[in-house]
Amino acid sequence: MRAIVFDGKLRVRADYPVPEVKAGEALVRVHLSGICATDIEITKGYMGFRGVPGHEFVGTVERAEDKRLMGKRVVGEINTGCGECSWCRAGIEEHCPERTVLGIHGRNGSFADFLALPQKNLHTVPDALSDEEAVFTEPLAAAFEITRQVDIGPNESVCILGDGRLGLLVAQALSLTGCNLVCVGRHPEKLKILEERGIETRLGEILERAFDLAVDCTGSPEGFNSAVSITKPRGTVVVKTTVAGRGALDLNRVVVDEITVVGSRCGPFEPAIKALKKKSVDVVALITKTFPIEQGVEAIEFAKRKDALKVLLKMA
Amino acid sequence: MRAIVFDGKLRVRADYPVPEVKAGEALVRVHLSGICATDIEITKGYMGFRGVPGHEFVGTVERAEDKRLMGKRVVGEINTGCGECSWCRAGIEEHCPERTVLGIHGRNGSFADFLALPQKNLHTVPDALSDEEAVFTEPLAAAFEITRQVDIGPNESVCILGDGRLGLLVAQALSLTGCNLVCVGRHPEKLKILEERGIETRLGEILERAFDLAVDCTGSPEGFNSAVSITKPRGTVVVKTTVAGRGALDLNRVVVDEITVVGSRCGPFEPAIKALKKKSVDVVALITKTFPIEQGVEAIEFAKRKDALKVLLKMA
Repeated sequence: MRAIVFDGKLRVRADYPVPEVKAGEALVRVHLSGICATDIEITKGYMGFRGVPGHEFVGTVERAEDKRLMGKRVVGEINTGCGECSWCRAGIEEHCPERTVLGIHGRNGSFADFLALPQKNLHTVPDALSDEEAVFTEPLAAAFEITRQVDIGPNESVCILGDGRLGLLVAQALSLTGCNLVCVGRHPEKLKILEERGIETRLGEILERAFDLAVDCTGSPEGFNSAVSITKPRGTVVVKTTVAGRGALDLNRVVVDEITVVGSRCGPFEPAIKALKKKSVDVVALITKTFPIEQGVEAIEFAKRKDALKVLLKMA
Repeated sequence: MRAIVFDGKLRVRADYPVPEVKAGEALVRVHLSGICATDIEITKGYMGFRGVPGHEFVGTVERAEDKRLMGKRVVGEINTGCGECSWCRAGIEEHCPERTVLGIHGRNGSFADFLALPQKNLHTVPDALSDEEAVFTEPLAAAFEITRQVDIGPNESVCILGDGRLGLLVAQALSLTGCNLVCVGRHPEKLKILEERGIETRLGEILERAFDLAVDCTGSPEGFNSAVSITKPRGTVVVKTTVAGRGALDLNRVVVDEITVVGSRCGPFEPAIKALKKKSVDVVALITKTFPIEQGVEAIEFAKRKDALKVLLKMA
């Protein structure tokens, strides 16, 4: 099969072996796959990953023990636990210490014609959703993870820092709570996507300490301190992105102002699929460009551009 | 009056003016005052404070508009808000942006014969408590602040990092919840104080990621990363101490493991006074040495020693 492979260097291969399908797993033919900041980090050596990256996808089940899945269009949760530890028994496979993570750790990913995932990781995609919408399920679920972790009431003042791929999804997901939300960024054309959906934005910087909740989606080493500096005492800062080398972090402010910092990673697929189905979140506007898989190396290079939002890889 | 004064240099003065008592305030004759890590930081320039440090005290009300307070033995909350902002109106003066803090910011403190505080900051001390016990109310309240911020159930596994003044108080306060608690430190003679009260301790380091809650009381730049590294996914790290220059903090681990970090500062006096009265916390064992106020400079120097726990200043 065709696959984008990272083995210290990134290249497209035409002859990569189709993944082995273990008991309980399904083989999925990938239609479309999204490039995420983590994929870019992987091509810089993050997690020491070797193999096929990619974890945002939509595809069709080609082979499965559960015949009801056959031929179904699916998206998939990316963490696969050992099934036996206390985390797995509690249904929280994403924190299993022995987990594999699709295209990130111990399991080849979605930048290929085929991928294998446990059947229970798959969610069928409603017919009302296009592939271009469905491929956003995974990153949108990561945005909804915040609402699982933090109670956001309608009177809360919330600031999203960053107008990249993740910032725009988080802003849209959190605005559904009815809170007083503003998204701060540096790119007028990206913020415009939110403005058109009635979400308040600010170009440049925020200096007031005026927010109950700040979400750092900047992906930059300075993002955390900025988020802390605009958060009221006893407020909450959510950190969504892993960053190599953060520099000096202002934990003293966290202590003096009794701020709560919440690390946030993968999230629940159901609310993401529902929001996409109801069109209460606009993801198609985030697609900057779609490349055929053969141009995968150029696609990942393109995704690094400051003006790029979501870049997709098309397999067929 | 006699006072220890920091004006860039620390010295004892015999002729310092008795504090002015404003409307609503009381004048307190200090009996005994405790030296805390913050006082040591202040003598290094922390907060840019100039004047009389000290915020842990027990004393007698000498002058007050409220005649019921006259002659009463009291301890006092250290934050004084503006009385008008949203924080003060919500009863959370300790986060008023215009607050003064006794001996730390904008108000002379307790290393002196007299101090002035608003009457409403004062709590009368039950007769059952000695001055040596009562002087621990403020730091013990800071330990109880954690139980206000984090739900600690009897099945939680909790690790206190640090066997200094604060660590020993936090360990005793949290052990009252019935949780599975261990305190980790480097000083057998300090840990012995907890062992004698049936609290589990560990000398050296902990390497397992086995705790639902870790509390960093090390006061060292490495404390935060150590706390994160022993906390289970979705667990909580409480940060109690401000530290100058923390170096590279591991926020990536916080994101990937979805850890919650809670900054924690001053706390509620009531549970501290109750615990002291019931003798459910042993504070007298923490007193390493008591100095007369005239030897205040030596006392603060002594408090820096690694083998020192609580050092007290006696005014009369």
